[in-house]
Amino acid sequence: MKTKYIHKIAQSLKANNLEAILVTPSEELQFIADINPYLCERFQGLFIKQDASCFYICNLLNADEFREIFGPEIEIFSWSDSDGFIDATRTAFTKHGLLGKTVGVNTTSRAFNVLTIMNEMDIQFCDGRYILEAMRIIKTPEEMQALREAAAIVDDSFAELLEYLRPGLTEAQIMEKMKDIFARQGIFECNVLACAGANSSYPHYCGNEGVVQYGDVVLMDWGCRHKNMWSDMSRTVFIGEASPRQSEIYNIVLEAQTAAEKAAVKGAFVPDVDKTARDIITAKGYGDAFITRLGHGIGYSLHEGPSIVQTNHINLDTGMAFSIEPGIYLAGELGVRIEDIVLIGPNGTEILNQAPKELIVVPAPKGKE
Amino acid sequence: MKTKYIHKIAQSLKANNLEAILVTPSEELQFIADINPYLCERFQGLFIKQDASCFYICNLLNADEFREIFGPEIEIFSWSDSDGFIDATRTAFTKHGLLGKTVGVNTTSRAFNVLTIMNEMDIQFCDGRYILEAMRIIKTPEEMQALREAAAIVDDSFAELLEYLRPGLTEAQIMEKMKDIFARQGIFECNVLACAGANSSYPHYCGNEGVVQYGDVVLMDWGCRHKNMWSDMSRTVFIGEASPRQSEIYNIVLEAQTAAEKAAVKGAFVPDVDKTARDIITAKGYGDAFITRLGHGIGYSLHEGPSIVQTNHINLDTGMAFSIEPGIYLAGELGVRIEDIVLIGPNGTEILNQAPKELIVVPAPKGKE
Repeated sequence: MKTKYIHKIAQSLKANNLEAILVTPSEELQFIADINPYLCERFQGLFIKQDASCFYICNLLNADEFREIFGPEIEIFSWSDSDGFIDATRTAFTKHGLLGKTVGVNTTSRAFNVLTIMNEMDIQFCDGRYILEAMRIIKTPEEMQALREAAAIVDDSFAELLEYLRPGLTEAQIMEKMKDIFARQGIFECNVLACAGANSSYPHYCGNEGVVQYGDVVLMDWGCRHKNMWSDMSRTVFIGEASPRQSEIYNIVLEAQTAAEKAAVKGAFVPDVDKTARDIITAKGYGDAFITRLGHGIGYSLHEGPSIVQTNHINLDTGMAFSIEPGIYLAGELGVRIEDIVLIGPNGTEILNQAPKELIVVPAPKGKE
Repeated sequence: MKTKYIHKIAQSLKANNLEAILVTPSEELQFIADINPYLCERFQGLFIKQDASCFYICNLLNADEFREIFGPEIEIFSWSDSDGFIDATRTAFTKHGLLGKTVGVNTTSRAFNVLTIMNEMDIQFCDGRYILEAMRIIKTPEEMQALREAAAIVDDSFAELLEYLRPGLTEAQIMEKMKDIFARQGIFECNVLACAGANSSYPHYCGNEGVVQYGDVVLMDWGCRHKNMWSDMSRTVFIGEASPRQSEIYNIVLEAQTAAEKAAVKGAFVPDVDKTARDIITAKGYGDAFITRLGHGIGYSLHEGPSIVQTNHINLDTGMAFSIEPGIYLAGELGVRIEDIVLIGPNGTEILNQAPKELIVVPAPKGKE
């Protein structure tokens, strides 16, 4: 348990009038307690209270292990598969004075569990993610170093992917290649996306059967978890040739992306950073096709604070890490996204990804696959 | 969209007095709609109503793609990162008459989203998983075949793991080996667990740094997803030698496991199947150390219906698939679990896992690593 964070969370609970917060298995729990148990349908979670005391509710199958891990200071309330979790939960809430109070929930708290508890006893739950997010938004020197290394791992994979790309490949094959490259280094926590042709126009495309053709754009968005820190990068390349229209759109996104990176300095107002990229894309007539926020914070989780969006009225500070990923998405036709992770480091802004961003055409023979 | 399931779900909603059910990205959504989009923190989900009509709420970045996938029959209500999801949700609920009503939620619905919606408008949510689970509990012939193949993939990996096991390996290395074997076959959706020595006494052990020693038990629990169907198997083996006490405990679990498999026939009352194993373990004096249910259903999800637990008062039927996994867990000392997947097939009970279950001692030189 990272005691200093428990105390910070307790203070924040008090300031926000929450009696406690529930932290179910997640990267949030890993950050606080250094464990991230397998979360099946059985209810479990750490409760942190305003007075900085904690207790844990879990199934009997976790109880002995968690007693060993947490030690005597954290009481474990366990329940069996045949009894169900409600009685143990009521006992815990009664003993810890949570009945009649409001408790925050973290990102992975499951609605069905929380609703069942609210139905069975007098307690209110609400979104408490912001309390946990605030603990992670400023990276430590060790976390900054791990972010740099994680970014370098993705950077290094780009050349091999470029070598691999050719007409006839399916998106699934490209994604498997990404996973293979990570797996060879013993990395199995990763997030990969490859979109060929018109599929690139869907920012979170969920297919994998598209086949790369001559003249296609291929949008790749991939990253991995290294020493608990995520990387995340997007590159968009062209197969065989880039048409004048493709090149024009690519270069608008590149201009917006590099301008926003320059604007992302310590003290910058987040909406201004978003606006830097948005103004460039809008001036070229593609404002409506930039349908996402500019970026997301990154660290223990792939998406965390600070969100780089118009409505996030904060200023960038040393230790913040986030993506800068403007895009132009023309549904059913073409999408271009360029994404780097940026860190506000101790000596200024660091662009963590160094993989080339100039327009790349992968050599390929003309003709249909 | 699998229209026949939409209509069955609609009937079940009516019978259970729910106006609609929310199905967020998950294996549940994949089963119904053949898609399983990446679920980040942005709210999205399919709503299925009592009249079998459906609508989908999602971020702008998914909207064009989902329109393409779902076609004109399913209205998409989209929201932008800068506006947030509440206004679009209110519009959708108003148009579809959900305000003032009760809506079920699936397994992956996030508490923070649902609580925020309940806070902003007049709507109730409750656990609706049972409605979706009932759709999947009887496997189709194709699903049965995929379950057989998925089990065979795990079976086939056992010999290579036995070959690999030796004193000095960490649990992390054994788990990476499991993932490697799957990855070589292009399988990246898997679930792996390896526990050495006393760590085996924690059924859902969450460490990975234990080192295999001469005389240790190694408990392995692993499976993968193949053609959308999961496999899941546990084997417990001994390194160098098995002490008389280890052997005694192993053989009690084996006796209970095989007896329960024999009891798992079409028509059997689920609590009786659990009792068959529990009675054997209890008679030998280890009843308190069998701290879990006997098993869980399996299919599209690693855990789904039917739960093989005392409190599940149903009878086994053709098409049901589930694990039989009794165990003896002596905290801090030793754990033994043996797990097969069992299918009530068209011609009777099939034990899908065929990897050897007799007590196996992996040859190893005596001495400490």
